[in-house]
Amino acid sequence: MINNETISAISTATGEAGIGIVRMSGDRAIEIANNIFKPIGKKSLDISENRKLLYGHIYDGSKLVDEVLIVKMEAPHTYTREDVVEIYCHGGIISVRKILNLTLDRGAVIAEPGEFTKRAFLNGRLDLTQAEAVIDLIKSKSEISYDVSIRQLEGSLSGKIEEIRERVMAMTALIVANIDFPEDEIVEATYKSLDEDANYIMDNLNELIENANRGKLLRDGINTVILGKPNVGKSSLLNGLLRDERAIVTDIPGTTRDVITDYVNLDGILLKITDTAGIRDTEDKVEKIGVDLAKKSIEDSDLIIAIFDSSRPFDDDDREIIKLIESKKSIVLMNKADLKRAVSEEDIKDLLGDRNYLNISVVSQGEILKIEDEIKELFFGGEIKESSDIYVNNLRHVRALKKARDSMYEVKKDIKNEMFLDLLEVNLEDVLSSLGEITGQTTTEDVLDKVFSEFCIGK
Amino acid sequence: MINNETISAISTATGEAGIGIVRMSGDRAIEIANNIFKPIGKKSLDISENRKLLYGHIYDGSKLVDEVLIVKMEAPHTYTREDVVEIYCHGGIISVRKILNLTLDRGAVIAEPGEFTKRAFLNGRLDLTQAEAVIDLIKSKSEISYDVSIRQLEGSLSGKIEEIRERVMAMTALIVANIDFPEDEIVEATYKSLDEDANYIMDNLNELIENANRGKLLRDGINTVILGKPNVGKSSLLNGLLRDERAIVTDIPGTTRDVITDYVNLDGILLKITDTAGIRDTEDKVEKIGVDLAKKSIEDSDLIIAIFDSSRPFDDDDREIIKLIESKKSIVLMNKADLKRAVSEEDIKDLLGDRNYLNISVVSQGEILKIEDEIKELFFGGEIKESSDIYVNNLRHVRALKKARDSMYEVKKDIKNEMFLDLLEVNLEDVLSSLGEITGQTTTEDVLDKVFSEFCIGK
Repeated sequence: MINNETISAISTATGEAGIGIVRMSGDRAIEIANNIFKPIGKKSLDISENRKLLYGHIYDGSKLVDEVLIVKMEAPHTYTREDVVEIYCHGGIISVRKILNLTLDRGAVIAEPGEFTKRAFLNGRLDLTQAEAVIDLIKSKSEISYDVSIRQLEGSLSGKIEEIRERVMAMTALIVANIDFPEDEIVEATYKSLDEDANYIMDNLNELIENANRGKLLRDGINTVILGKPNVGKSSLLNGLLRDERAIVTDIPGTTRDVITDYVNLDGILLKITDTAGIRDTEDKVEKIGVDLAKKSIEDSDLIIAIFDSSRPFDDDDREIIKLIESKKSIVLMNKADLKRAVSEEDIKDLLGDRNYLNISVVSQGEILKIEDEIKELFFGGEIKESSDIYVNNLRHVRALKKARDSMYEVKKDIKNEMFLDLLEVNLEDVLSSLGEITGQTTTEDVLDKVFSEFCIGK
Repeated sequence: MINNETISAISTATGEAGIGIVRMSGDRAIEIANNIFKPIGKKSLDISENRKLLYGHIYDGSKLVDEVLIVKMEAPHTYTREDVVEIYCHGGIISVRKILNLTLDRGAVIAEPGEFTKRAFLNGRLDLTQAEAVIDLIKSKSEISYDVSIRQLEGSLSGKIEEIRERVMAMTALIVANIDFPEDEIVEATYKSLDEDANYIMDNLNELIENANRGKLLRDGINTVILGKPNVGKSSLLNGLLRDERAIVTDIPGTTRDVITDYVNLDGILLKITDTAGIRDTEDKVEKIGVDLAKKSIEDSDLIIAIFDSSRPFDDDDREIIKLIESKKSIVLMNKADLKRAVSEEDIKDLLGDRNYLNISVVSQGEILKIEDEIKELFFGGEIKESSDIYVNNLRHVRALKKARDSMYEVKKDIKNEMFLDLLEVNLEDVLSSLGEITGQTTTEDVLDKVFSEFCIGK
């Protein structure tokens, strides 16, 4: 699956910046770099010490291209397990391109997205969950999603999967032994002991699957819609939430311009507040609050923040809002608590039923914190136990886990019905194969291609 | 002027990318980095070999932040001449920020724009023209402007200024000797020999000033307006010029969205074709071709490409266009040369007078090349002698050169009038001071602040 070409790519983001990096990996990396680099000191790159930064110039023949620092890292102790060269040149768009083109002229081929990491995976430096963590890290927009990914990179998920796999393998080994050598003095595979094993495996799979939704929310952010009639304080809530967090928005490339998405970083949890033109329209037209587009946003959302104005009597629009959020996770705010109340506790109970709500007035730091706590409570049962919990944040992993669980369910059924051990073994093999898909042991090339196509070039 | 603080900044562009760099410079750089870095191998950063890349982890206390490569570069053989540490971490927005914040928590201060390079300048690693070349390099949008800057970084301009300075100093020394020791056996400062010196200096200053406009065009691009009636082929020319060069446009951050600017890279020369909404309007309203906004664009432009349709008779609009471009550098194209001509050579001569023009039909690669040659001829007298010519591309330099020339003019006048040598000496000191402003020997702190404020952070 690995081709033998030496790959080259720009590994830094494009833009005016101090430093840009061109990176090569492969058998010819050092030779190609040596060809275009003239050191200031005596030692050329090929005979320089491993991992020692050299200062010098990149030349295109006799033409000076840039002043650079350069380093060679010899296989196998590198990211890709191949020879790697990194060239640290001036940032901006020209230098990095010139140097990249030079390496291509000299025989390197342009790296595909994620090809460095793919080689790291294929050469056994990382398993697939770790490779996936690399791109998640780079794409992280909040500290907590970053933390989930860095733990995954360090092997937290692989470790857990391995733990489950080992139990499945032990179970399989026992079954096989009992099938092959039923008369020998081996531990007997009783249905009772098998059931215990199966339960342990099942519990662990279920725990991972249950956490997966949270993992996805941590990674991608919580899709949030703020809902309320005009003038109930939606904008001031949004502005309160955004505070100085606006900065992060402009830094995220690829923010589409048709649909405005504001990212709010609430103590590490990312709220992704989507403002569609359609929803904006509805703000002007109370009677149209139920239009399709708004409904669609509500449907796709993970969280609704519904605001009501307690200084005016409730009306049908308010009741319509409550109906819309019926089956959704939501936080209800009674705004304008500082003004004279126009609604009684009775009215509120009429409107909300048993729902909880928060009284807020002007949106202050303190009130934002209260809302934040509510969100954590809703989605993560309070504190996020960041250092211990393993959050599966990847749909591919969830699918494989569910496949494993389906097979385990068959195993449990067979145990219950005291079926032949052979039958159990077949299903246990399926469990192993599904788990192997997660870590990359049994992953097809198609899946690999898909995983690495999500990467940026240069990683 | 140098404070003693250890500075820290993100040195790579923001965005999803393989690698991000956090860089520190100052006495405490190694100590701070050592504090947050745990190596995988045995050697901690502080006792590691100079310039050797280490692999390990950044920790915030016991909390893992990222897997990184790190290097320390000990003073004085570094960019800033101070201790420097570079941390190569995962790209994206979170990791670099986390690590930057950690360094700040541990005692570094955030670097101001250009502060690394400012320290390099203040510590004598670069002169001011070289420091300015660094930011020009990073901001370059075309290969030729890049080449001008890299030569300037390597000292081409400094060398030339130094050459002139030395001649001025020699002249001054001779004059001073003749003033102080008129009776001694020294070379006599005759007005004839002084005039020869003055001419040499003047010629060199003039050459630099004359090249400056070209330098500015090479750096900032040639402001170009395409002018013509509707349906003469403006769009197809623009599209022809843009070809696959569009790519470069999206890569340049800060392209304003109100005024659309297309950058066309013609063999290394950057054409900056500005499309204002106003000019677009005029395309729909022939009679309004003379509106203020269009006139303003024409006024600000370095180059007009005027297109006429030779398959239709000329009319008043065509004559209006010729009037508008009267005093401007322009290229005139007779389009639709493949269709039946509706205008005679006489008509063309009537319209254009002695202007040259190019016949074009469909805009082909070949025709684009012809236009490109015309532009080179117009602005650079044909080929750009990139390897030898020194292009001053900086308004600050031009001003200082003109000040030096003004003082030299006084010197020449005094020589012609055979004034007292003392008078000459005063003006020669002014010349030296003006030249010193360029390289930074006599630059005020205000000017330095202004120069470095143009930098990006992290350089």
